[in-house]
Amino acid sequence: MAASTPTSRPTPERIFNTMIAFQETEALKAAIELDIFTAIADGADTPAALAAKTRASERGARILCDFLTVKEFLTKKGGRYGLTQESAVFLNGHSPACLASMVNFLASPALRKNFETLTDAVRKGGTASKAGDNTKPNDEFWVNFARSMAPLTIPTAEFIAGLAVRKDGGAYKVLDIAAGHGMYGITVAKRNALAEIVAVDWPAVLEVASENARKHGVADRYKARPGSAFEADFGEGYDFALLTNILHHFDESTCEKLMRRVQAALKPGGKGITLEFVPNEDRVSPPMAAAFSLVMLADTDAGDAYTFAEYEKMFRNAGFARTTLHPVPDMPQQVLVSEK
Amino acid sequence: MAASTPTSRPTPERIFNTMIAFQETEALKAAIELDIFTAIADGADTPAALAAKTRASERGARILCDFLTVKEFLTKKGGRYGLTQESAVFLNGHSPACLASMVNFLASPALRKNFETLTDAVRKGGTASKAGDNTKPNDEFWVNFARSMAPLTIPTAEFIAGLAVRKDGGAYKVLDIAAGHGMYGITVAKRNALAEIVAVDWPAVLEVASENARKHGVADRYKARPGSAFEADFGEGYDFALLTNILHHFDESTCEKLMRRVQAALKPGGKGITLEFVPNEDRVSPPMAAAFSLVMLADTDAGDAYTFAEYEKMFRNAGFARTTLHPVPDMPQQVLVSEK
Repeated sequence: MAASTPTSRPTPERIFNTMIAFQETEALKAAIELDIFTAIADGADTPAALAAKTRASERGARILCDFLTVKEFLTKKGGRYGLTQESAVFLNGHSPACLASMVNFLASPALRKNFETLTDAVRKGGTASKAGDNTKPNDEFWVNFARSMAPLTIPTAEFIAGLAVRKDGGAYKVLDIAAGHGMYGITVAKRNALAEIVAVDWPAVLEVASENARKHGVADRYKARPGSAFEADFGEGYDFALLTNILHHFDESTCEKLMRRVQAALKPGGKGITLEFVPNEDRVSPPMAAAFSLVMLADTDAGDAYTFAEYEKMFRNAGFARTTLHPVPDMPQQVLVSEK
Repeated sequence: MAASTPTSRPTPERIFNTMIAFQETEALKAAIELDIFTAIADGADTPAALAAKTRASERGARILCDFLTVKEFLTKKGGRYGLTQESAVFLNGHSPACLASMVNFLASPALRKNFETLTDAVRKGGTASKAGDNTKPNDEFWVNFARSMAPLTIPTAEFIAGLAVRKDGGAYKVLDIAAGHGMYGITVAKRNALAEIVAVDWPAVLEVASENARKHGVADRYKARPGSAFEADFGEGYDFALLTNILHHFDESTCEKLMRRVQAALKPGGKGITLEFVPNEDRVSPPMAAAFSLVMLADTDAGDAYTFAEYEKMFRNAGFARTTLHPVPDMPQQVLVSEK
């Protein structure tokens, strides 16, 4: 169990740490809720100073920060805490790359509840929750997603914006399906002055996307079409359709059904741009893409992390001629580009 | 975010994985509940065979086992799962070292609930739960502990049994305070035919300890004294008193109070043998001992992982002449031996 003594005998340390891994989620969540990382960035670096600044107890601040130091999210020298490079960039509220808000979605009570009944989900082959059919609205859940998860999109949205360009320099239309926070379509619009975005999502979610479009100065080229991706009138003549993190929620025939609607809305030669977790054929690599399948088992009736071969087949069945795979640099997801 | 590309830029991968670390606890818990590791040991190594053997769905078995492979608790080759060396020893129900039952305590609803309100505990400086005073009984919690945690004790109990020996070969008495499953005292009795154990704990918990004493053939030298460690009549003339994982639940003055009672029950020259998580003076190393402090913040009113200097002072105040520290080989805990 001692980490310090290398030995060929197996030790139960990693099993023990996995049995209590939930503690790490809760510690990081508590630190974000108390804004400990920002307080340290602002110079409150002792338990007493942190207690004063975050309205916590000194004892509580000391124990939490010691734990975060053990887990290498903080440093501690001479009784003073400091941010690691990672925490300074991604957890400090003053950093433009701060993604602290993501914990509100990733460790939300709804997602945790679905994992608490994981044994039932494994028995059944789908979520034990009643909200596993993602063709139905679930406003509270998806508004939380839209409000919490935007920070993670930045590098990926830039990558997608580089793919969703009309080469001849003319004006063009982009359909953003299940837009969520809207940041993928909004980034396309920011990078390409001739792009017009049509965003589809549930009404309450599109309010978040439209708010983001205004904030980023592209509201005049941003249209909202509220409704289900399976029923809303998409319109037609699109050069590109974005499908970012939506297909994994459904079984294959539902994905095909959606992709047929997308195919019909695209111009000839138009492209579907799908952002997904795409594991290798072995389904156990690369780690983050492969592990995502369990999230879909816990949260949805029949969703999955599909392989490239599975997506290629679904897209072909939906009328796309050719699909290619593009890894997003430094990110765990991949982009599939499928041509009509 | 990709683990595969080494880079000097920080990536959010570790933060992301910590935000979802609770998923690892739930996956391991589900696999233990379904007895997946034992089923694989018995030859059910495909999703179909596992589904049949564990009464799960094939899809659920496949996704769970892929996740466990990503997390290196299983192997996967040609579509067949296998146990890692670690899982074969510690998670396979046929292994004498199996400690799968520990998940029932370490990830119990009560402990998870306490961590869900960790932010409140940091604010307050003690558990947000109403059951944080461990001088009061909490039968359900401690019976669960006693039934779940015995497997972890084996190497530590052997180490303690080597310390609790009367050198002149005479008969001797050992007081086991807050005995729990009883395995520390029982191991002393098994290893030393002249040792008589007097175990103190809440009545329902002592039933588990007495059952274990019978199972291990030492019931004739095993006496139960039900009650609070702060009120029960210990008797006197003990050569050794075991205090295994109890002091961390209390503040320093409560620890001193208990140690004064222990000191009074020991013979002159008798020894207190305390098993604890003892972090270094920096309180952030070694990792497992230092991290344990947060568990006490979440679960108790005023418990902590105390340093050696803190224990030494408490024991001195309680009348012990001298305290020495003994690391338990390959385990994260330490033993403090204090002489009357």
